[in-house]
Amino acid sequence: MSLLTVGSVAFDALETPFGKTDKIIGGAATYITLSASYFAEKNNLVAVVGDDFPQSMINDLQQHGVNTEGLQIRQGEKTFFWSGKYHNDMNTRDTVEVQLNVMEDFDPIIPESYQDCQYLMLGNTAPAIQRTVIERLRTRPKLIVLDTMNLWIEIAYPDLTELIKQVDVLVVNDEESRQLTREYSLVRAAAKIRTMGPKTVIIKKGEHGALLFHEDRIFFAPALPLEEVFDPTGAGDTFAGGFIGYLAKTDNISFDNMKRGIIYGSAMASFCVEKFGAERIMNLTQDEIQARVSEFVKLSAFGFEEVI
Amino acid sequence: MSLLTVGSVAFDALETPFGKTDKIIGGAATYITLSASYFAEKNNLVAVVGDDFPQSMINDLQQHGVNTEGLQIRQGEKTFFWSGKYHNDMNTRDTVEVQLNVMEDFDPIIPESYQDCQYLMLGNTAPAIQRTVIERLRTRPKLIVLDTMNLWIEIAYPDLTELIKQVDVLVVNDEESRQLTREYSLVRAAAKIRTMGPKTVIIKKGEHGALLFHEDRIFFAPALPLEEVFDPTGAGDTFAGGFIGYLAKTDNISFDNMKRGIIYGSAMASFCVEKFGAERIMNLTQDEIQARVSEFVKLSAFGFEEVI
Repeated sequence: MSLLTVGSVAFDALETPFGKTDKIIGGAATYITLSASYFAEKNNLVAVVGDDFPQSMINDLQQHGVNTEGLQIRQGEKTFFWSGKYHNDMNTRDTVEVQLNVMEDFDPIIPESYQDCQYLMLGNTAPAIQRTVIERLRTRPKLIVLDTMNLWIEIAYPDLTELIKQVDVLVVNDEESRQLTREYSLVRAAAKIRTMGPKTVIIKKGEHGALLFHEDRIFFAPALPLEEVFDPTGAGDTFAGGFIGYLAKTDNISFDNMKRGIIYGSAMASFCVEKFGAERIMNLTQDEIQARVSEFVKLSAFGFEEVI
Repeated sequence: MSLLTVGSVAFDALETPFGKTDKIIGGAATYITLSASYFAEKNNLVAVVGDDFPQSMINDLQQHGVNTEGLQIRQGEKTFFWSGKYHNDMNTRDTVEVQLNVMEDFDPIIPESYQDCQYLMLGNTAPAIQRTVIERLRTRPKLIVLDTMNLWIEIAYPDLTELIKQVDVLVVNDEESRQLTREYSLVRAAAKIRTMGPKTVIIKKGEHGALLFHEDRIFFAPALPLEEVFDPTGAGDTFAGGFIGYLAKTDNISFDNMKRGIIYGSAMASFCVEKFGAERIMNLTQDEIQARVSEFVKLSAFGFEEVI
């Protein structure tokens, strides 16, 4: 089924204990659509860049089957830029510089050919922009998944809570879920978020995996234990892209299929951190993905099916 | 098969955001043997208390099938006492008071009837004491599991590393594994510990579950997501007791069976935190335990067995 992703396409400059990069392609929607490209057949992007954004990077997206008809290129303006530096533990980072540039007044225009969208992924950006996208779709998608971040909880809480009412799945990390609900227990945080609108809540816990909450059911997804995280940038977006891409491909939004979507998302995220930026998820084969998913099966199976 | 547990039997006084207790029964060996009592048939204890330790508490252990022949009662001396206060997040605590008392010169005497021990659980205490126990067993047990803590890594590192060489399984939490190896990645920490002696390493991550490392294989065990942790005291020991109790009962130390042992240990730990101290694990039924294990199965199964 048709997937629409809205979010940032950006330049990132990264520094980790393993090295640093010049400006490379980044942004939530970049990671989401690249990750989803291994699953979804119709992979539509709405985003904005400046005229400094190289055609070669747009070609990279297109070669992965990303439809860039909805990618606005604003003449005389510059692309969103973020640079960050990770601490030695790789779990925390400092933002070195942010230049909003074209994102400051991003107007998410939906091409007519995207109106058949069944799966909508609202990548991290201002809640007002995310809400505009929902309003501009003439038919409500079958599934709307929302990602957000601490910044919007702090500076756009009313907008965000209005938006949250309208989505099916909220994807946040553990700290964001606590910040949003003022509940320390993730079980309580998820329950509170479910009273705010979304039927389903996914709480990402990085190296500790992810939790999927749906009605009174919980799924505890493992993360692949890694010797080394080379660069965590984009791992959360890659996770979301694998998740919604798998759902769009299989066109099944049951709890059981969402579990499988989370395993695919986790597998994609485990690739993402192996190299700088999006390099690794630009160069994957279906065999590599299936092999990684098999590792997740072996990692968490304990042969107790008989006791259910 | 016969299980021998060595460690502290103590008085604890606890304070959590939910309330506080007077002196209640505590100590690593108490939690381990109570937890193991639901599995192991021969459940032998070596520990020491003072004459202030009430017979009623000894009766409680005995009623759970714990053999207290090896429990020394030292006249005119006082039982080990620990009091602690948990912070609001329940993940950190302050030690309010420690009185070593009889533990200061604990000499672990092994009753003759314990010499058939096949499974040995060295509960957290000084490495020199733990090592004495191994030396006093005429036949090496089939499996030796060692628990330790940050204190011994700090003040008894040479003793501890000598001891670690002699055990089959080391059980530590994530921070202890990092402190012991100076590796941040848990995969690397476990690999380094395995070069120090133990073939198998279990890293406990509290609410994030546990990792089991054995040769080149890893098992990622979930933890039950809880609305509320009432009192985490003893959860790690209860986990270890369920683990080794299950192995002793099934007399199978394969990787696959260790996975199941970890699920039983995790189930027991999830009960432990529901009430103060050992209260909950003193009052469990086999049906409750099986139902909890079924929850773990549902929590982590994702129906992808076909892709292995």
